Amino acid sequence: MEFDLIEMIRQRTAQPRDDVRLGIGDDAAVLAVPPGQELAVALDTLVEGVHFPHGSAAADIGWKALAVNLSDLAAMGATPAWALLALTLPAPDADFVQGFAAGFAELAQPHRLALVGGDTTRGPLSISVVVHGFVPPGRALTRAGARVGDAVLVTGTLGDAAAGLALVLAQGQAAGVADELRPARDYLIARLNRPTPRLAAGLALRERASACIDISDGLLADLGHLCTASGVGAEIDAARLPLSSALLALHDDASALPFALGGGDDYELCFSVPPERVVEVQAGLARLGCGATRIGRIVAGSGVRVRGADGAWLTIAQHGWEHFA
Amino acid sequence: MEFDLIEMIRQRTAQPRDDVRLGIGDDAAVLAVPPGQELAVALDTLVEGVHFPHGSAAADIGWKALAVNLSDLAAMGATPAWALLALTLPAPDADFVQGFAAGFAELAQPHRLALVGGDTTRGPLSISVVVHGFVPPGRALTRAGARVGDAVLVTGTLGDAAAGLALVLAQGQAAGVADELRPARDYLIARLNRPTPRLAAGLALRERASACIDISDGLLADLGHLCTASGVGAEIDAARLPLSSALLALHDDASALPFALGGGDDYELCFSVPPERVVEVQAGLARLGCGATRIGRIVAGSGVRVRGADGAWLTIAQHGWEHFA
Repeated sequence: MEFDLIEMIRQRTAQPRDDVRLGIGDDAAVLAVPPGQELAVALDTLVEGVHFPHGSAAADIGWKALAVNLSDLAAMGATPAWALLALTLPAPDADFVQGFAAGFAELAQPHRLALVGGDTTRGPLSISVVVHGFVPPGRALTRAGARVGDAVLVTGTLGDAAAGLALVLAQGQAAGVADELRPARDYLIARLNRPTPRLAAGLALRERASACIDISDGLLADLGHLCTASGVGAEIDAARLPLSSALLALHDDASALPFALGGGDDYELCFSVPPERVVEVQAGLARLGCGATRIGRIVAGSGVRVRGADGAWLTIAQHGWEHFA
Repeated sequence: MEFDLIEMIRQRTAQPRDDVRLGIGDDAAVLAVPPGQELAVALDTLVEGVHFPHGSAAADIGWKALAVNLSDLAAMGATPAWALLALTLPAPDADFVQGFAAGFAELAQPHRLALVGGDTTRGPLSISVVVHGFVPPGRALTRAGARVGDAVLVTGTLGDAAAGLALVLAQGQAAGVADELRPARDYLIARLNRPTPRLAAGLALRERASACIDISDGLLADLGHLCTASGVGAEIDAARLPLSSALLALHDDASALPFALGGGDDYELCFSVPPERVVEVQAGLARLGCGATRIGRIVAGSGVRVRGADGAWLTIAQHGWEHFA
């Protein structure tokens, strides 16, 4: 079965790449990193019921398993090249695999990502994906490099995926949303199920940002990681957080704020840039179709503080979610 | 929790390697493949109750999760360099992680393998490991290359791990083995729990073997894969299969044979060499402390046939085991 499943996915993600010297089917893949490039490698696991709700569509799971990994490459400013996939399934299920492959391929294709290896095993549903990307030597964009005085920005909007998860988990319990709110609901759930890794933005930021991280555990948690790695603190203005019209259609500002500060799974980029470069960076990202909002600043010290609309510091109970918390 | 667990393992597997430009702790590792080397990459998942018995010691699981992957690099003739680890645990368990890290590190250290990334998630116990190794361009040892007339050899002995698994699964049900057979029992169980990847042998075979595979699913299944990839068939002489004295202490020839032909998890290498090079190859492996036995030959056609001690072809019911079979 191993070869059939992985082969089915490989066929749907076929990418002619000269740098794949030997693909799926032997004991290991053989790959050639282009001269003058270093390799960025990331690994993330999704477990049913932990990282995606029970009953999620197979195609969404396939998309998301790749997206969360590509998001790591985006945060490093790396260009995706190859992936390996470990798929654990309770039982052989051709429909699931077809759907999974379709979702995986839909995201892989435009990035010319080749699936070069995999392993299929029997067990409770979980997926690990490893992605490899290229980055010029010494140029990877890291979490360590933010300096006091830098501006803090985020791409896109925050809190959508967490609000989408709340909607999914409430389905069946409530009467649902009114007809006119259905587009907003669908948008938020799509943000949960089909996150867009910010690869083009990451590349553009590689030479411009001082530090960068992707938002998987929530803004406060992930900006906190960036601050720790950089040896600095940060201040965020709650009123500046970019919120989608879909989120605001279903929540007022007060109930949207915890999603935006603590909700995971948005896979936007949070980054720091010297203040004099903010406008240039925003314009550059806008040309890529990616909005970026200045939400705060890097300060001396440690930790992340949030200032409310009235200027007072907020006390935050929800510091993002950790999968083992 | 993610950083703590992975950090604990990283500390126990610390390897100063110049080629790790950025290790654990950012969104991705950044790695430099040495000039003039290609990258061999393999991924294998172990699930509790499928790939190792419930109740296995954490240190054995840590060892084996790495060993099965290093065995893939051995089969390619690659030199190990880096690993990433996805560990899914039902609950945070410091004792388990300590044990797992100790077993993983015990095997990683002598091979100078650096852990460069990982992900820890909550869920039913399973482990995926990705290993990266180096191989000179165009020199990887593959499954495709066996030619009619080549001799077929295997390293070490066959069937030990499968016999060990039978002993583990029978524990508690039977009165156990007699005192004088305990060393044999312990040896077989150790072969199951602590397989030795044949890395030095794989390197030595890289310039000498025409094709190679590691035996994870059983000799018949894996030699069958080699034959399929090479477009040939193979004939095996049952009487030549190398059996350990431990296996023969607990089984007569007839009951040992199914273990040797169909039992998985030995992680020995099965390879083909031109007949005139057999003696030289055996001598070279012997200098590395690795025995190698000629067990048959590559023939025209397809599939693997086994000749019994009386010269008649055997009918084989057990074609190795597939994890989804």
